[in-house]
Amino acid sequence: MNAQVIAKRTTAIRRELKRRKISCLILSKPANVTYATGFMGDDSWAAITKTRAYLLTDSRYTEQAQKECQNCLIVERTGSMARAVAKLVVRLKSVRTITVEKSISLADFEALKKHLKRRPKSVGGIIEEIRSLKHSSEVAAIKASASIAIKALQRTLGHIKAGITEIELAGLLDFQMRKAGATNSFDTIVAFGPNASRPHHQPGRRKLKKKDTVLIDFGARYKGYCSDITRCFVLGEPTALYRKVFDVVERAQGAAIKAIAPGVKLKTVDSAARDVIREADLPVYGHGTGHGLGLEIHELPFLKIDAKGTLKAGQVLTIEPGIYIPGKLGVRIEDDVLVTDTGCRVLTSRCPHSVVLPG
Amino acid sequence: MNAQVIAKRTTAIRRELKRRKISCLILSKPANVTYATGFMGDDSWAAITKTRAYLLTDSRYTEQAQKECQNCLIVERTGSMARAVAKLVVRLKSVRTITVEKSISLADFEALKKHLKRRPKSVGGIIEEIRSLKHSSEVAAIKASASIAIKALQRTLGHIKAGITEIELAGLLDFQMRKAGATNSFDTIVAFGPNASRPHHQPGRRKLKKKDTVLIDFGARYKGYCSDITRCFVLGEPTALYRKVFDVVERAQGAAIKAIAPGVKLKTVDSAARDVIREADLPVYGHGTGHGLGLEIHELPFLKIDAKGTLKAGQVLTIEPGIYIPGKLGVRIEDDVLVTDTGCRVLTSRCPHSVVLPG
Repeated sequence: MNAQVIAKRTTAIRRELKRRKISCLILSKPANVTYATGFMGDDSWAAITKTRAYLLTDSRYTEQAQKECQNCLIVERTGSMARAVAKLVVRLKSVRTITVEKSISLADFEALKKHLKRRPKSVGGIIEEIRSLKHSSEVAAIKASASIAIKALQRTLGHIKAGITEIELAGLLDFQMRKAGATNSFDTIVAFGPNASRPHHQPGRRKLKKKDTVLIDFGARYKGYCSDITRCFVLGEPTALYRKVFDVVERAQGAAIKAIAPGVKLKTVDSAARDVIREADLPVYGHGTGHGLGLEIHELPFLKIDAKGTLKAGQVLTIEPGIYIPGKLGVRIEDDVLVTDTGCRVLTSRCPHSVVLPG
Repeated sequence: MNAQVIAKRTTAIRRELKRRKISCLILSKPANVTYATGFMGDDSWAAITKTRAYLLTDSRYTEQAQKECQNCLIVERTGSMARAVAKLVVRLKSVRTITVEKSISLADFEALKKHLKRRPKSVGGIIEEIRSLKHSSEVAAIKASASIAIKALQRTLGHIKAGITEIELAGLLDFQMRKAGATNSFDTIVAFGPNASRPHHQPGRRKLKKKDTVLIDFGARYKGYCSDITRCFVLGEPTALYRKVFDVVERAQGAAIKAIAPGVKLKTVDSAARDVIREADLPVYGHGTGHGLGLEIHELPFLKIDAKGTLKAGQVLTIEPGIYIPGKLGVRIEDDVLVTDTGCRVLTSRCPHSVVLPG
């Protein structure tokens, strides 16, 4: 991200800090540090005050930070992070109390308290809320990431033949994403046959058989931004059960996508998908209907039964209902969707839901 | 891991809980949950009491948990984790106060406090300390993971030719590990030429040139266990500077490995490596000399300048000194080492430090 985009973000963050009377916010969550500073490395924190932004890192990352964080003052720490924060805060005359993110670990919180000789305040969700509204450059980054994932899948389809293992198929797909300059946004899930009834199955040595079903849940991370797609295939002619299940999942997903618009309750979108499955008398999935994605693979908003809040234009989220019948099959369809001013746009529509594979 | 190994672990954990008068320890750190229960999935917590072990998970993982956690009672939660813990604790008559790990987030800690209507106690490092002493089956798992990584590197060496990009080389290496049934224990670092002066460089589109240097820092994760290796290469004849730097790094690493034995201070091993580099009048690295590895890529013990404590037999750790000259080069050599009763054993010795590549 360029310096202007980062400057816009810090302006948005400072507006919120002012509203909440926070003079110095310490960011410790990696995605939030990246968002506020542009830094793409690890093990680093940021401090945002009314006038300055600091990146606290160590010598492994100093060179990288100088390149990536043009709007920040770089503080190279040698001791613990808590000590480095305390040392910095002493120097900041306008800062009386620091506020930390609630995602900080209890251990780090206590270390900070010790070094600062006072209890820091804490706050949750400030950066996450701001991050959930994507700038056009972020939407472009997610689209680029999705595009890499889709092309990688297309290049892998020819290998989906009887005899290949789940691990090999996952490896081929990952390699295609790597070749395009991306990494995985999470460990690729490849599940053959009944393995797909476990939504988070880890690929194993099971070989693909004739007439088998295949579930692939995968995503790329490109320039920091994630995509997340699930597709299901059958080798040859599907069974009547599979056909029915697939059709219901696709209708459930369509219903949720149709419900998306700014101002719509999160739980309304969630139930739109579940209702279709319930009405078809098939088992309703236990996971959420979708989640935001961006710098993190799971971020705000979360579409769950008990979710509070409404959708906002600029949010990007997955829609991924599924039907799981243990010992038999699992089908999930997942696309990435941008909430627009009037409804939504599917960012992964170039990836067809069904592809006929030779049996 | 089989049920007997897990049972041994819970016995060791309970011994420590008894000593510290903890009636119920809540585990929230993924590697600790895996260690205590055998569960290999995500988003799950465990509760260990005097007589029972519970795994708190959600419907995505129920089937997997039933397979993997034979010593546990599986609690399928639908609401928040904090609520599920509170609900469980009410049922446990022998438990009056619960204790959580300090690695828990402040947000989760506060949610627990709210649902329990009392402040939980907190403790750090119990499971991490126990985990740092590896059972023979764990050493075997780390060796298997290292063996996959080493074979993957051997199969990739032929591709290290002028014209290949850092990304492509990383992708080829990752693919070889995938094919062997492993995933990455962390994102592979491939750095050509001066890029290697950034210890955590992210592979980019830079192409390998004639006479270039190559640094590869990579590891496999196999059956949950990590390996971590760094090797450096030169295309053709190395420069006098590279030769000198490589030699000093290798001697520094050898000095640290030679210093390893049970009872030796962590900081003694750390300085053994640094001293060699300092004496050679070359810049001393800012990162640690090594770290434990197992279920996590970074775990106890940590070899740092200010580290407290001593080595214990059964610990497995990396030894990875480096020399970084910004704009010029970076060389790091990293092996995985088991602390034995009398000294140590290098688990990655099948991977030669230097390989001559055609220029």
